[in-house]
Amino acid sequence: MSTKKENREAVPLEEREYHSPSSGIFFKVKKILYRDKSDYQKIEVIENECFGRVLLLDDLVQTTEKDEFFYHEMLVHPALVSHPSPQNILLIGGGDGGALKEILRWPIKYACLVEIDQQVIDVSKEYFPWLLPSLEDDRTELIIADGSEFIEKTGKKFDIVFIDSSDPAGPSVSLHESDFYEKLKSCLNRRGIAVSQAGSPFYHLESIKKKDAFLEKLFKNVCFYTSPVPTYPGGSWCFVFLSDEVQPLKIKRGPPRGLKYFNLNIHEAAFSLPNFLKDLGSGD
Amino acid sequence: MSTKKENREAVPLEEREYHSPSSGIFFKVKKILYRDKSDYQKIEVIENECFGRVLLLDDLVQTTEKDEFFYHEMLVHPALVSHPSPQNILLIGGGDGGALKEILRWPIKYACLVEIDQQVIDVSKEYFPWLLPSLEDDRTELIIADGSEFIEKTGKKFDIVFIDSSDPAGPSVSLHESDFYEKLKSCLNRRGIAVSQAGSPFYHLESIKKKDAFLEKLFKNVCFYTSPVPTYPGGSWCFVFLSDEVQPLKIKRGPPRGLKYFNLNIHEAAFSLPNFLKDLGSGD
Repeated sequence: MSTKKENREAVPLEEREYHSPSSGIFFKVKKILYRDKSDYQKIEVIENECFGRVLLLDDLVQTTEKDEFFYHEMLVHPALVSHPSPQNILLIGGGDGGALKEILRWPIKYACLVEIDQQVIDVSKEYFPWLLPSLEDDRTELIIADGSEFIEKTGKKFDIVFIDSSDPAGPSVSLHESDFYEKLKSCLNRRGIAVSQAGSPFYHLESIKKKDAFLEKLFKNVCFYTSPVPTYPGGSWCFVFLSDEVQPLKIKRGPPRGLKYFNLNIHEAAFSLPNFLKDLGSGD
Repeated sequence: MSTKKENREAVPLEEREYHSPSSGIFFKVKKILYRDKSDYQKIEVIENECFGRVLLLDDLVQTTEKDEFFYHEMLVHPALVSHPSPQNILLIGGGDGGALKEILRWPIKYACLVEIDQQVIDVSKEYFPWLLPSLEDDRTELIIADGSEFIEKTGKKFDIVFIDSSDPAGPSVSLHESDFYEKLKSCLNRRGIAVSQAGSPFYHLESIKKKDAFLEKLFKNVCFYTSPVPTYPGGSWCFVFLSDEVQPLKIKRGPPRGLKYFNLNIHEAAFSLPNFLKDLGSGD
């Protein structure tokens, strides 16, 4: 977003892009349920009248009880309806458990959640009802580690990897760089898919374009898609679907029951990009 | 949106639904450019660093320089690509001129803008650069009148009517009622289409369902569609496409050049509804 800041040169790139201090979303705080600084970040859970419990990391909304389904369903289900037989799934970040809950709706064999911050897990267990049952599921393994280091060292290969990172500031910086995606590719099975959140199409267009440029060198199919997320800035969000062999619009199966947002029409619709995003991606 | 307000019974329905005081969008005011109370409503234009000039009526954001294209392109172009030969267009509300600008991109014969509040026109002429050239276009007629009274009295018939109203509080209340749509139908040519903004799918779901119920008694095709609008609460918005003869997914022609958001893939995608909206509409 080009904003005419007097102090443009003095502000680091990430701060310029990932905070839009002149506009945003406000939540009235009914109650502060939790507030602490972990080894990695500031963690807060507040209670809001409309959205219920809201998780904030370093002041940015990560998820809320009432609207979490938009983001988590749209992060997870597009890859799972597109892959021919997904069995082993890796989830990097997403310690709040919303994406894990969606993954476990599928008849997969193994879901590995790699979260850097044990304290995010502990807090989410306490305040978000979906995390504990997901962690107790026999198919789940929780690993507390840096996602970037994990994919470098693990010998395992996965069918689908989800990167449910926070924005490129704080502990998630490395998850937004070209290096990370190169290493990630070596953890994918031949028909593997990686899906990452990619920021706001309205506020973060420049960083989305930069990411697209390096992703197109790494993957044959780089397919951006969008979804509404009421509590993220700008109200809609970009995701990117990455694969050498799998194309997202060749649907392999229908979604599980009980979803509030995702269906196969929405799947196809999400990959239709508006004119201002049209030059992104290689796969469609 | 069901919110557990202690004072629920004391708050009129419209206020409960159309304000969500516990969350929302904030704009830092760089400068107040205009602030007055007209015969109908409070009118303000502020300058914001990210969104440029922002028009507010009775404290609700109507349009901004930077993101107006999402809403105005998505209000106008779906009907114009679907109608077999649109010539005479009526626009009720929309005194800021954003929708009129989009209508005039098409080779139509006549565009009639009916706005209740002359002061909105005067203010928009001064602060939003697209209004004046649109009013000076030979095809435009501006009528200052109540939209509901206008459609009752005019003998004219139109191919497409757009209802670019503010929310159902203040001067727009009558534009959200069954009576209005009954009268509206009598102003439509046989293959006519009406399109109206219908509120936030997240915040206003109950009122959208009520509107759907009476619209389905009046029109054969009642097709809801959605679009991101960064500066509206929840970040995405509902529109409804109404017609007895025309179906929105039977596309008649491509859009004009120069659009930032709309294209034919987006047109089709917009009519794909998420599960929580799926029981709306009759036409698909």
